[in-house]
Amino acid sequence: MAQHEMCPRFEKAVNILSQRWTALLIYQMMDGNSRFGEIQSATGVSGKVLSDRLKSMEQEGLITREVIPETPVVIKYSLTEKGKSLEPVLKDIEDWSQNWIEHPDKQEA
Amino acid sequence: MAQHEMCPRFEKAVNILSQRWTALLIYQMMDGNSRFGEIQSATGVSGKVLSDRLKSMEQEGLITREVIPETPVVIKYSLTEKGKSLEPVLKDIEDWSQNWIEHPDKQEA
Repeated sequence: MAQHEMCPRFEKAVNILSQRWTALLIYQMMDGNSRFGEIQSATGVSGKVLSDRLKSMEQEGLITREVIPETPVVIKYSLTEKGKSLEPVLKDIEDWSQNWIEHPDKQEA
Repeated sequence: MAQHEMCPRFEKAVNILSQRWTALLIYQMMDGNSRFGEIQSATGVSGKVLSDRLKSMEQEGLITREVIPETPVVIKYSLTEKGKSLEPVLKDIEDWSQNWIEHPDKQEA
């Protein structure tokens, strides 16, 4: 890390992490949910939003998308190595937040 | 982490991490820079912006602010336990970004 400026890579990484649903979707795929329908019912994210987020994660190289020509067509998503390697980062953020962040419900009574 | 929704604490943690300068200022204080002027000259952040960010970090409980009644007055900042405990999280994000994120200068030629 340069003394006088933040590495643009770090900013980009935080930007990826801060996009709504990214972390949740990575957790879902680590848990073995790979089909669009599975992810949707496990998360409750609307189809349109989920589709957009998955497309964006594919563009970031975090996941791959595979179309399986069954009837009806099945679309499967898998984490890439880049996506899988976010797991310890997510866990660290989660641990820190559990230890240090008060649950917002308690603050906004 | 709940199966069906992202923990609000996680979102809050990522929100803190994604605020511009937070990570850089934490690194500065870990490196031993504690006076306003030191931090400013090490980072090049303008006085107004730096003052705002430090105030916000103080409100988040990441740092403490101490006024030392010398002439001229010295203002020292220190990381709290909460702030120090972000160090491994920041390092993880940094490591991940170094491994997986291409430097933006290379992408935007």
